[in-house]
This record gives sequence, C-alpha cells and structure tokens, in this order.
Amino acid sequence: MKNDALFKDELAKLSLKVSKIISDDEFPCKVSPKFLRDAVKDYPSRRGKGLRPALLTWSCGLLGGNPQLALMPSAAVEIYHNWTLVHDDIIDRDSTRRGLPTCHTIIANFAKDTMSLKPDDAAKFGNDLAMLAGDIQQAWSTSMILRSEKLPAELRIFLAEKLQSNVNRPLISGEALDVESSAIFGKKLPSTREVEKICRLKTAALLSFCAESGAIIATFKNAAKPQYDSKSSEKLAKFADYCGLAFQLKDDWLGIYGDEETLGKPIASDIAEAKPTVLLLKTLELCQQKEKSEILSILGSKAGKREIGLIKKIMTSSGAESYVLRTSQKLASKALAILESFPQNKYRDLLEDWTHYVLDRKK
Amino acid sequence: MKNDALFKDELAKLSLKVSKIISDDEFPCKVSPKFLRDAVKDYPSRRGKGLRPALLTWSCGLLGGNPQLALMPSAAVEIYHNWTLVHDDIIDRDSTRRGLPTCHTIIANFAKDTMSLKPDDAAKFGNDLAMLAGDIQQAWSTSMILRSEKLPAELRIFLAEKLQSNVNRPLISGEALDVESSAIFGKKLPSTREVEKICRLKTAALLSFCAESGAIIATFKNAAKPQYDSKSSEKLAKFADYCGLAFQLKDDWLGIYGDEETLGKPIASDIAEAKPTVLLLKTLELCQQKEKSEILSILGSKAGKREIGLIKKIMTSSGAESYVLRTSQKLASKALAILESFPQNKYRDLLEDWTHYVLDRKK
Repeated sequence: MKNDALFKDELAKLSLKVSKIISDDEFPCKVSPKFLRDAVKDYPSRRGKGLRPALLTWSCGLLGGNPQLALMPSAAVEIYHNWTLVHDDIIDRDSTRRGLPTCHTIIANFAKDTMSLKPDDAAKFGNDLAMLAGDIQQAWSTSMILRSEKLPAELRIFLAEKLQSNVNRPLISGEALDVESSAIFGKKLPSTREVEKICRLKTAALLSFCAESGAIIATFKNAAKPQYDSKSSEKLAKFADYCGLAFQLKDDWLGIYGDEETLGKPIASDIAEAKPTVLLLKTLELCQQKEKSEILSILGSKAGKREIGLIKKIMTSSGAESYVLRTSQKLASKALAILESFPQNKYRDLLEDWTHYVLDRKK
Repeated sequence: MKNDALFKDELAKLSLKVSKIISDDEFPCKVSPKFLRDAVKDYPSRRGKGLRPALLTWSCGLLGGNPQLALMPSAAVEIYHNWTLVHDDIIDRDSTRRGLPTCHTIIANFAKDTMSLKPDDAAKFGNDLAMLAGDIQQAWSTSMILRSEKLPAELRIFLAEKLQSNVNRPLISGEALDVESSAIFGKKLPSTREVEKICRLKTAALLSFCAESGAIIATFKNAAKPQYDSKSSEKLAKFADYCGLAFQLKDDWLGIYGDEETLGKPIASDIAEAKPTVLLLKTLELCQQKEKSEILSILGSKAGKREIGLIKKIMTSSGAESYVLRTSQKLASKALAILESFPQNKYRDLLEDWTHYVLDRKK
C-alpha cells in the first residue's frame, strides 16, 4: 500500500458523503406500504465497503476532474449494486447479507409476525415484495443519475444510457448464465473459461462502468455530439475489468478459506449451492478422479464441517487454490500497470491502494 | 364512437409501427443465454391492444405536436407495461397471458424439458429467470426514451426521470398494496376507497404518464429550464387518470362477467386469488350477511362453476355490478368532458374513440 492510513481515511470520508446523499434523497419517501419503503432504503443504507463510489470518484480525480461532480453518480452506482444484491439473494435463497437478514427474509418475517401468514405464504410474500423493492431501487439509481444537476444534460443521458446498455444487460446476463450453470451442474460441468466469462459479466461490468464514468465526467466536452477522452476511459474500464475478475476470484477464495464471522455470511455456501466458481472448476480439473467423485457427491447438499474440510484440502493439494490466488495476483499486476501509465497524482495513489485493498481484503 | 373504422385503422397502423420499432431495436440482442433473450422479447412482441402508445402519440397530436416524435417514447411505454406484467404474473402465479403461457411458465417448461430439472426446481428457475427478464425490460424501456434522438436532451431527461419517479414508484407501490391486501384479506377487508386508490396507482400512473408525455413532447420549449404547456399536460394526465380507474373497474367486471376465450385468461381468477377488487368489496358491502359469509368461504379456494355462478348472482343482485358499471361510466363522462375542452381535431376524435374503446371492450 502507498499510504494505508490516507486510503482508509479517504475511503471512509467518501463513503460517508455517499451515504448521506443516499439517506437524504427523497426518492424512496413516496413508496408505500411502509415495509416496502423500509426495504427500498435498507441495503443502500447498510454501510458497504464503498468500493464502487471510490472507483468512480477517484477515476474522475485521476483525470483532473472535480470529484464533487462524481458524487451523485457514485451514489447511483451504490444503489445500483444493491438492487442486484436484493434480486441475487432471492435467487440464492440467502438468509444473511453483511451480517444482517436479507431483504426477502426481513419481509417474510414481517409477514409471519405482523400479518400472521403461514410460513410458506410468508416466504412467497417475502420473495415477491423483495423483487418489487429491487425494482424500485433499479429506478432509483437511474433517477439519481438523471438528477445529477451539476452535469450537463448530454452527459447525464450518456451515463444513464450506459447504465442500461452496458451494465444492466451484461450483469443480468452473467447472473442468468450463473444460475443456469448451477442448475445443470450435475449434468454438465462448465469450463473454467466459461466461469471466468460469467464473473466478468456479473462483477466487472459495473466496476468498468464506474471507472469509465469517472473518466468521462472528468473529460466530457459538451459538443453537438458527446466528446470525451475515450482512450483514457477505455484504459480505465480495462483496469476495472481486471480488478473485477481478480475481485471475484478473491471472493470465491474467501467463500471457502475466509472467516465466517468477519465475512458476515456462511462459509462454503457456494458448495451447498453447487455454485460453479473458478476455484471449484479448477479443482475438479486438477484433482484425481477419486477426489472428483467425492467432491461431486458433496456438492449441492448441506455439507458439514467434515465435508467442507475435505473439499478445502483437495482445493489446496490439487493446486487450484494457488492457481486462483496466482491468477488474481496476475490480474492485479496488469491492472496496476495500466494505472502506472497515467501521470502520478493523489488519485492514482488512491486507486493503487484501492486495487491492493480489493485483493488483500478479508471480507 | 365518432368513427369506429377510422379509429381501428389508426390504432392498428400505430400499433404496427410501434411493434416494428420494438422488434427492430437491438437492445435485447446482447442478452444471454438465448432463452433469456427470447423471454425479454416475448411479451413486448405479443400484439397487445396498443392502448398506451395510442394515448401517448395522440395526446401529442391533440396539442399540435408531430406524432412521429412520440413513436420511440410510445415503444418505451409499451415495453414498460410489459415488464410490470412479467413480474405481476410471477406474483399472481398466473399461467397464461394473452392466451399464451406466461413468461415464468415458458422458462419453467424449458427447464423441465431441456435442462431436465425436477418440477419444483424448474418452477423456481422459471420464477428467478422471469424476474431477471423483467429487470432487463425495465432497463430497455428507459434506454429507449434516452435514445429518442429526435427529442432534445433536456426533454429526454425530463421524460426518463418522470418514468422513474412518477411511474415506477406509484405503480409498484400499488402492486405491493394490492399483494398486501390480498394476503390479509381473510383478516381485514380493505375499504372500497382503498381499493380504488390501489387501482389508481397500479393502472392510472402509467396511463397518466402516457397522456402527459404526449402533451409535453408537443409543447416542449428547450429553455435553460424545461418549459411546456403544463396546464394542458395536467388536464390530459387527469383525463388518463379517470380512464385508468374506469379501465380497471371494467377489467374487474370482465374478469367475472367476461368470456374466457375472448379474454385469453381464466374467468374468476380474482376469486381464486381472493383479489380485493372494487366489484368484490362493493358486493360484500351491499349484500346480506348470509351471502357475505358464503362469498368469504369461497374466496381464495379453487372455486368451481357452481361457486362462481353463486358469487356472480350475488354481485348482480346486490347492486354491486351496476355500481361498478355506473361508476366506470361516470368516470368516462368526466374524462370525455376534459377532452371537449380542447379544440377539435383529428386526434381529439381519436382520443374520444379511445375512451369508448377502453370502456366498451370485451377483452
């Protein structure tokens, strides 16, 4: 890290600013009934790491833009990230998120306790209403960009359109491919390459948008046709793409080797869900036939400590663990090399630390 | 009707143009996997009645605007309407829509047949992926407005933002209130007034947006701050609001008294789902105590022909049926009176016929 204390301080300060914009914003106020309004505000007000707002704002600063201009779009990407999590949690049947109950779980509990619905009806009610909460959050995020009054109209249109075409489409396609390959996992193993593609779509699309948007905000010229430094913005999008895949590899690794309490979610849920991660696919590719059969018989069931321990051991001994960590490291180096190509300034240092933070994190 | 043949001809021509814009649009092309791409295109390519595009385009014409400018936004509202139907069908567990299987049913069948998933897993897969299809359609619709290149940037922002704030929020709030009051129906009957409020939110919000947008497109002046004929656009929004509630009352009536084959969906599904419609609430308010108990014992279960016949009889004899038809007629008169206040032209005649069409329809 260049300057760990400065980085953490800047990240915390920015995260606070973005949180304030989100909590002050009146978009959710007119949502009814109250429990839906609460659900719309919930995830965006849970303090996340703020990695996406930082990427957007600092990319703007890197190219000499005024970081203040990037604040509303930063709040928008944070909300955007959160609506995808709400729908993701429904699909994955996850019950906790950042150490707290998931959106659909909270609503299902509300339906059980306050509306006296039977467990099955309450669960369906939770899923249905959480779906609607995510639907509103998606609109909230777009609205936030359109209401970024410090930005010229042409720029707001450009960014809001990119959010629909370059984020929504790939991100949801990635999610769908992920769900599809999980569902047919027992019948057909995807290749490591296919899983990497899914990671890129699911994670890197939004990160690339953040870096690119920051660059575009910094260099936008309001001409008859939008003009901006496309070379720099494309380089930064590539930087974020590398980081996104590295991030996801690290995420998969943490899902197995991380600490449950620090993570705030159950360890090895990827195994119970038979989620095709690069770590798992590489393990199946590298391990012995007998080990492969053992792993496949455990996947998708409620694995106990013994089973998880066994899979973890095979992941390490097969070399898959070190492959994943090595690849993640390589991608980080490529990302850092891109940053190096920009003139040094405060924001380049922060983005460098951001990259290390993403890869050295424990949660 | 002013001129039934002309109206139908104009509606069909407009509907064809809008369908072509939708089917030619490349937004869904990059969606994968293929079955999700197909799902995204499906509802918007099923020929609906095209009532929303007509309302938008003709409102633009009414105020002297060029109807060509309203075509992309008209395609956008048609797609918007369809994404809400996809999520609505998941919530209502409906299996048919416009005479064809619903989005989640098609995907569930695909999962069963092609991916060999077990029935329960296939049903969950269908719901999850249909949710994602709707998510993409929501973005598609917004993207369409942002890409309406014939409109000035400030106007595109204005309309796209209205779509998030004035349509998404009330429409989904209405949907949520509807689901909530259905869920607690056995324990607490909503008032007719509450149900009317839900109708307004669920149906009238998008219709008002259509009429208002048409008026705004026609009268927009690209000044430092957006300017348009707000008096006319508000009058037209009110016109659409009356029509929206009248439309919903007629819809509820058709759901009981309509013809199953003409409608393309099962009769009396509102009864099986214990859906709190104005027709039902008014019946419970007006009928005798013994009849009320009979109705309440049938609601929410799979009612047979005998039970549906009984409820239908009570709805008529209690005066609730005529209340609903009368109210719908009164709202239509108010709507038509608003139209009368505009100078006569071709589009005023078309909107007048549109109003009659909405209320005299058989499906």
